Amino acid sequence: MSVVIRHAEPRDYADVIAVVDEWWGGRPMAAMLPKLFFVHFRDTSFAAEDGGRLAGFLCGFRSQTHDDEAYIHFVGVDPAHRGSGLGRELYDRFFAAVAPRTVIRAVTSPLNERSVAFHRALGFEVERIDEDYDGQGQARVLLVKHL
Amino acid sequence: MSVVIRHAEPRDYADVIAVVDEWWGGRPMAAMLPKLFFVHFRDTSFAAEDGGRLAGFLCGFRSQTHDDEAYIHFVGVDPAHRGSGLGRELYDRFFAAVAPRTVIRAVTSPLNERSVAFHRALGFEVERIDEDYDGQGQARVLLVKHL
Repeated sequence: MSVVIRHAEPRDYADVIAVVDEWWGGRPMAAMLPKLFFVHFRDTSFAAEDGGRLAGFLCGFRSQTHDDEAYIHFVGVDPAHRGSGLGRELYDRFFAAVAPRTVIRAVTSPLNERSVAFHRALGFEVERIDEDYDGQGQARVLLVKHL
Repeated sequence: MSVVIRHAEPRDYADVIAVVDEWWGGRPMAAMLPKLFFVHFRDTSFAAEDGGRLAGFLCGFRSQTHDDEAYIHFVGVDPAHRGSGLGRELYDRFFAAVAPRTVIRAVTSPLNERSVAFHRALGFEVERIDEDYDGQGQARVLLVKHL
């Protein structure tokens, strides 16, 4: 694999926003991903490049309420790179970056069955499904992994 | 003023989301405010209550890239409470919570003239206007205050 993973930079944001709706199969996701992750959470956020072209990204941070927790907000992999192990590698980089924290949380839409299956394969457990987690009718699957 | 300001809690999120579009004059804002701020940034996020009813809120965090910076992501005040000093009081609570950090950043839409004027009155300076800051066509005024 010729893909290089590095820390996210502010300049990555435009590339990410340009592809994010398409990578999510046409769902309008861009409004849910403000630039702040690429500015203020760079050491726990990553961009993957394949010959200078964006192949994937991960945005996460250390919880500032729970000392042992970290949270993954957004992860995307170019459909052309799916199945290559890149998603798992992005998560591994995040787990290493937040060490020694051991509780990793993420939420995803129950409609995104690929995401739920991917997280289970990585060792995440489904804590519960909250039908209104991110607002009325915005259901989320709450996922947690203990490192 | 009988308004009480306290740290944000996850249970505040439903109340905030129920009013946020209305407080922004009908602009669809809810998608830009995920629950995570009420879970992982509680000591730098605040809810204001007036007799048990939400009167305002502020969501912010300490930058994890820039050691001396903090960022305010979202602030709302019930139109019925505007002009009462509540907005300023929410910012003061945030400034105290992030001490000893001295660089406070925020972004707002150039369309939101009330927000730009409010930040100027609080001592924020306009660094620049970025026409595509939060994605193509999503212009933002970049604001900074040095404490």
